[in-house]
Amino acid sequence: MQLLLLSNSRAPDGGYLTFCRDALAAQMQGVQKALFVPFAGVSLSWDDYAAQVQDAIAPTGVQLVGAHRDDALGQFLAGDIQAVIVGGGNTFQLLAECRKRGWLVRIDDAVRSGRMSYTGWSAGANLAGLTINTTNDMPIVDPQGFGALGLVPFCINPHYNNSLPPGHQGETRDQRLAEFLIANPDKQVIALPEGSWLRVQGGQAQVAGQFAAKRFAAGKPVEDLPVGTALYV
Amino acid sequence: MQLLLLSNSRAPDGGYLTFCRDALAAQMQGVQKALFVPFAGVSLSWDDYAAQVQDAIAPTGVQLVGAHRDDALGQFLAGDIQAVIVGGGNTFQLLAECRKRGWLVRIDDAVRSGRMSYTGWSAGANLAGLTINTTNDMPIVDPQGFGALGLVPFCINPHYNNSLPPGHQGETRDQRLAEFLIANPDKQVIALPEGSWLRVQGGQAQVAGQFAAKRFAAGKPVEDLPVGTALYV
Repeated sequence: MQLLLLSNSRAPDGGYLTFCRDALAAQMQGVQKALFVPFAGVSLSWDDYAAQVQDAIAPTGVQLVGAHRDDALGQFLAGDIQAVIVGGGNTFQLLAECRKRGWLVRIDDAVRSGRMSYTGWSAGANLAGLTINTTNDMPIVDPQGFGALGLVPFCINPHYNNSLPPGHQGETRDQRLAEFLIANPDKQVIALPEGSWLRVQGGQAQVAGQFAAKRFAAGKPVEDLPVGTALYV
Repeated sequence: MQLLLLSNSRAPDGGYLTFCRDALAAQMQGVQKALFVPFAGVSLSWDDYAAQVQDAIAPTGVQLVGAHRDDALGQFLAGDIQAVIVGGGNTFQLLAECRKRGWLVRIDDAVRSGRMSYTGWSAGANLAGLTINTTNDMPIVDPQGFGALGLVPFCINPHYNNSLPPGHQGETRDQRLAEFLIANPDKQVIALPEGSWLRVQGGQAQVAGQFAAKRFAAGKPVEDLPVGTALYV
């Protein structure tokens, strides 16, 4: 399996998929066509979303096929597609639509067998984890089950940040993740701050990008995973 | 029906259920025993949670019966209980446990028939709404369906606040609620800032507390609902 799991897409300076350009280019080597999964997009049309990502990855020469388009399944099954790219947005809607349209099983099979690489950011990174229990998103639709692709043996928390808006009484991210582990003591969470990602290949997940990731596991202190750390997956 | 739906429990000065003391006392008039529903509590035991709330409402003289205790159902069915109080915490765990243990249907029936009043804060306010789609919580367990009590004809967003932590690229609360309305254009959301609540009786829900609530509805600008506003429910 070859996975690129990014915390986010937008750099602090507003650039879209710019901070991870080299990692994306490496992941797209040898790829002519990629399936783009736009279902996490809520406030823009899936055509517009696909066009936005097509623009951003234009330097790689990869041509996107939107998973929402009628011709996508035929191309996917015909073997014309070498990569899957899953955009961010709302994780619940992403999982709900992937499940309903049959893409969850198809993507799982194509990526596990090594026929296609998998790239996802934000909700798209969550989808690669064991379950979507550690998304930060509002549950705007019921995905009919929280189980996700499980391409890595942990859950992912993207946009990791332990701050709260001033004056707010809600839980911090660390408290939320600690509660997840109380309810699910058999699971681990890898939290990715914005600007960081995991590169998975050859049985290793390597922390890359700007900031250290963190590992949350029941009964253990939160562990810093500096850039360059390799986890066995 | 007589409902008291609070955004939060903890005042900015750390006081627990202090800022709403008068509203709670009014709601508990004539009540000797109340069912306390602790299932949203994750990082403290349900016994400890019940004891903490019992302390906070001691001035009302009400005696709590924890819904997690073996003797709760007997007392509930025997007619010994005049009020339901649902504490905050994790909304997903609250709904999951209420559904699994049969309390969802029992509470619905008792409150709609007027046999018991309903008081809830945070997750407990969410539970009174149509669905839990507009909770802010992490989905740490699957509640097996997002439908909630529907005691009011809208969804509730507690801890309403449109700020983000500095440097964070995630969605604001307003963006999240706008996305909920795109996916669910037939629903409305009443957002309650911390320090505010809704008092529902006689077919009206009145905004009370410190700050204006907000109404979010598809295709309409966000509407301010100043303290004192009455909504027909």
